[in-house]
Amino acid sequence: MPTVIVSTIELPERARELLRGYDVALYELPRLGKEEWTSALSRAEVLMCWCGREFDLASSINSMPSLRVIQTFSAGVDHLPFPVIPSNIEIYSNAGAYSVPVAEHAWAMILTLAKGLHRQVLNAREYLGNEITSPRRVIESTLLVLGTGSIGLEIARIGKEGFRTHNIGINRSGRPVEYFDEVYPTNQLLDVLPRADIVAIALPLNKYTKGLVGERELRALKHGAIVVNVGRGDVVKEEDLYEVLKERLDIRFGTDVWWIYDGHEEIPPRTPLTALPNFLGTPHIAGGAQRDIAEYAMVRAVENVIMYIRGETPMNRVDRNDYV
Amino acid sequence: MPTVIVSTIELPERARELLRGYDVALYELPRLGKEEWTSALSRAEVLMCWCGREFDLASSINSMPSLRVIQTFSAGVDHLPFPVIPSNIEIYSNAGAYSVPVAEHAWAMILTLAKGLHRQVLNAREYLGNEITSPRRVIESTLLVLGTGSIGLEIARIGKEGFRTHNIGINRSGRPVEYFDEVYPTNQLLDVLPRADIVAIALPLNKYTKGLVGERELRALKHGAIVVNVGRGDVVKEEDLYEVLKERLDIRFGTDVWWIYDGHEEIPPRTPLTALPNFLGTPHIAGGAQRDIAEYAMVRAVENVIMYIRGETPMNRVDRNDYV
Repeated sequence: MPTVIVSTIELPERARELLRGYDVALYELPRLGKEEWTSALSRAEVLMCWCGREFDLASSINSMPSLRVIQTFSAGVDHLPFPVIPSNIEIYSNAGAYSVPVAEHAWAMILTLAKGLHRQVLNAREYLGNEITSPRRVIESTLLVLGTGSIGLEIARIGKEGFRTHNIGINRSGRPVEYFDEVYPTNQLLDVLPRADIVAIALPLNKYTKGLVGERELRALKHGAIVVNVGRGDVVKEEDLYEVLKERLDIRFGTDVWWIYDGHEEIPPRTPLTALPNFLGTPHIAGGAQRDIAEYAMVRAVENVIMYIRGETPMNRVDRNDYV
Repeated sequence: MPTVIVSTIELPERARELLRGYDVALYELPRLGKEEWTSALSRAEVLMCWCGREFDLASSINSMPSLRVIQTFSAGVDHLPFPVIPSNIEIYSNAGAYSVPVAEHAWAMILTLAKGLHRQVLNAREYLGNEITSPRRVIESTLLVLGTGSIGLEIARIGKEGFRTHNIGINRSGRPVEYFDEVYPTNQLLDVLPRADIVAIALPLNKYTKGLVGERELRALKHGAIVVNVGRGDVVKEEDLYEVLKERLDIRFGTDVWWIYDGHEEIPPRTPLTALPNFLGTPHIAGGAQRDIAEYAMVRAVENVIMYIRGETPMNRVDRNDYV
């Protein structure tokens, strides 16, 4: 009996090829009619999905009695409806699939903000004297990375190798990680924030990280700090961010990730953040929104599913206790 | 008899300290009255100057009969009035004094343009579909650097170590240089231009480089190329640049250096370049316009003068045949 895999989106040819050597039946929902769709779901052992807007997992989960594995295409799984997913179903994320492009985007935002390039000012005196554009030196500066997973690691690597930064990491346990000169557990965040010239947020959104960066943390930032967020919007408290940025124009903040209202990321957000001169935003495009990056991520997700099919232990098992 | 050094600007304390161990008489023009000024110039053996707007070398050179050495604070010497400088006077530039901050600025412009961050577009479809902002991948791309001096070298290093770029260099002889995978002589520029994803111009302005990049070179660029100039404006032909950029919106161009009219760099320039959406400009601030960078550069210049005082061979001797 072949393993039935249902993908909620069409897979790239490269990903389909990978599956050819295995005893699997692959169903891609966009290629199916309504009846086939229902039949495929009823027999699915593995579900591959973004499980965001394209597929409503909560309302479909009861039609998938054979489901054993959910493999997301996304790195983050914060949007999954954990309470309705039976506990015998294993969930695997696609952590790591986007680390290189997302870290590159983080560094683009860091350097844009450090040199004030989000505003074109052509008068030298105004450029240098203006709190919004005056250039900050990046080389040999202190870089604090919140989250030392694959994205945080790549941000630290680019800093260390490209710009000789002194790297401080924050993770749950404070365990040492390559490319970081110092690592501290999350509860010491407030102590290290004042040392950072640059702060990069690369945390997943879970019950431990939600709202981690609020008014107190933002006010602890060094004068002239650059902060970028490529993790999840809700790691930062939106209202607090708006209030502090409005008041402290010395802080420059860039984000590719936004805040969730009613289950959806809203761009622009509800506070008038994007009107502030010390704010830079991109519409959540650093990762999967780019076609070639998304294709690579889908191939990675299929490779992880193949580990399951071969009876090996897939990577990136999600601990649902982190979310519920 | 002490060596008489005249500086056209006040030196930072760190630079003055360096001179204390030597038999020198230092005169800083801004600290002198008119008579002392004339007297200092008449006895000057070493002149330290930007020799730009702050001091008119052409009209003063005849009042300096004892002059043997001109040491510039600037890295470039293209603005010196070579024809009126007697041939027995040695000229030393301050090449290398700005390489780290200028290369950092070059990379800031590269990444800003690569991710379209000079324009804030918050709609994902528009951001990704728009020729002005759609993100370009930097990691493992091909970087072509025009000029393999200290700035070009540091641009190549950041590319190689930070973003694993494949580095192609252009210099006069085609001699190999660290951090470059391939180097070609200037006459092969047109052959290598179509291979580059990113082009960084870090050339001094001299009779060999003036107008080196014109319509033919710009049209040879790969679709979607990023080009930045941190050398001198007039290495690129302004009218040609305007015409090609206006037509080819796929090319994104950033510059910190501008075009000279009547001996002065004009910002904004005479063509309406700055109105183009694929153009990014900063007002020549990557180097000496920043106080801490200028201070470091002045210290370097003094260190070079000390080599002369000690009877050693100073660095960065200018070959005036490159300019006249």
